[in-house]
Amino acid sequence: MNAAPHTARGRFITFEGGEGAGKSTQIQRLASRLDAMGVATLITREPGGCDLAEQIRALLVQGDPGGMEPVTELFLVLAARRQHVMRVIQPALEAGKWVLCDRFHDSTLAYQGAGRNLAGARLDSAEQWARDDLTPDLTLFLDLPSEIGLQRSRARGDAEQRFEKERETFHHSVREAFRQRALSEPGRMRVVDASLSIDALSERIWELTGDVRNAV
Amino acid sequence: MNAAPHTARGRFITFEGGEGAGKSTQIQRLASRLDAMGVATLITREPGGCDLAEQIRALLVQGDPGGMEPVTELFLVLAARRQHVMRVIQPALEAGKWVLCDRFHDSTLAYQGAGRNLAGARLDSAEQWARDDLTPDLTLFLDLPSEIGLQRSRARGDAEQRFEKERETFHHSVREAFRQRALSEPGRMRVVDASLSIDALSERIWELTGDVRNAV
Ligand SMILES: Nc1ncnc2c1ncn2[C@@H]1O[C@H](COP(=O)(O)OP(=O)(O)OP(=O)(O)O)[C@@H](O)[C@H]1O
Ligand SMILES: Nc1ncnc2c1ncn2[C@@H]1O[C@H](COP(=O)(O)OP(=O)(O)OP(=O)(O)O)[C@@H](O)[C@H]1O
Ligand SMILES: [Mg+2]
Ligand SMILES: [Mg+2]
Repeated sequence: MNAAPHTARGRFITFEGGEGAGKSTQIQRLASRLDAMGVATLITREPGGCDLAEQIRALLVQGDPGGMEPVTELFLVLAARRQHVMRVIQPALEAGKWVLCDRFHDSTLAYQGAGRNLAGARLDSAEQWARDDLTPDLTLFLDLPSEIGLQRSRARGDAEQRFEKERETFHHSVREAFRQRALSEPGRMRVVDASLSIDALSERIWELTGDVRNAV
Repeated sequence: MNAAPHTARGRFITFEGGEGAGKSTQIQRLASRLDAMGVATLITREPGGCDLAEQIRALLVQGDPGGMEPVTELFLVLAARRQHVMRVIQPALEAGKWVLCDRFHDSTLAYQGAGRNLAGARLDSAEQWARDDLTPDLTLFLDLPSEIGLQRSRARGDAEQRFEKERETFHHSVREAFRQRALSEPGRMRVVDASLSIDALSERIWELTGDVRNAV
């Protein structure tokens, strides 16, 4: 005997990549197409996505690159994630919404793990705790040479420049870490060529979400 | 053959206990007596002790008890600690100063470990990372029934009330956890009866710091 039917759980899709890769642009595109299909979506971002986590984000994105200890940066990211996962992402998924999130745990492994050299068992343990073992159903990694992404990002000119100011080798190792993660989890994490036009990229992302849409 | 002499490393003394136990009062007393002996001291506190960590403290002490996820609270505390240890405490100790710190890792084990039920291997691993494995030379645990401490703390009436607002069982388990820690590390952690008068307590603390002073 089956229990009475509940609202089907939503899907959790994350967008990853370096600075200016086009994550925020494509997340909007995907949400519009899903909305048009009648799928209820929630667009959110990390670090951030709720009041407290946005206050933590403000600490992370301001000031000089060297103003913060690497482990401090890590724990701030994880503090924000826990609040966001427990108070926003999980409730939305349980209510049947599709959650589209601009950066999630892969960014932590790439930026703090590789970029800040904190990779290892302690990082893995802490970051799994922070996300309550929640794993995205699908992750779209927008891959782009970091020089091009940084040019785009600087041209857009927002105030959140602490990571943008990092040296070239930092951004290279972040990209390399994303690529390695995509290789090691090919089922979940798909690489898309972010040097395509906005329209072509959005078409490619729509194709890649086909499996997740059909699994509903 | 010995290397050329360096400045002797300072001592690291932490003050622990529940709300209103008298930590801030006694830390000032001890610093005055050490200063009078010609020992250079630094009084500091957690969470806090440097700009960034004080900004993190502001997030921790404001708002409703239930406004923050327990794991978020933990990671915020640890983020603040890492910055404080690396940028303030360790440099001061290396410069030969005695660092007197109002709360440190025992508070994390008591408040987040016992009070918030987060005790375990993951917490131990994260909290050791945060403090860069730095352990106090001496910890003075000011033990007081939590009802009395809370009365004192409320009478003083500061704005940092998020923990003060916690239910009675929370404060009881915090006190119990401090006591257990003192039992398991009797060499480092000394229990003092915080129901004594300010003067009697300060005398007792002076005696207890005798070993650390004589070891210089
Ligand atoms: N496929 C694309 N080709 C060229 N320019 C693009 C493309 N996608 C986005 N852009 C432009 O590049 C800039 C960065 O895009 P977007 O903000 O979407 O990137 P992001 O990955 O969210 O960046 P950040 O990491 O800084 O948040 C914007 O000005 C955007 O209009
Ligand atoms: N031994 C004592 N006997 C009676 N009152 C005391 C004693 N020590 C401190 N007080 C008073 O109790 C109040 C709390 O003391 P204090 O601020 O030193 O405690 P605390 O442990 O730092 O508190 P908190 O945890 O809130 O920071 C103050 O008003 C202080 O003057
Ligand atoms: Mg963006
Ligand atoms: Mg105090």
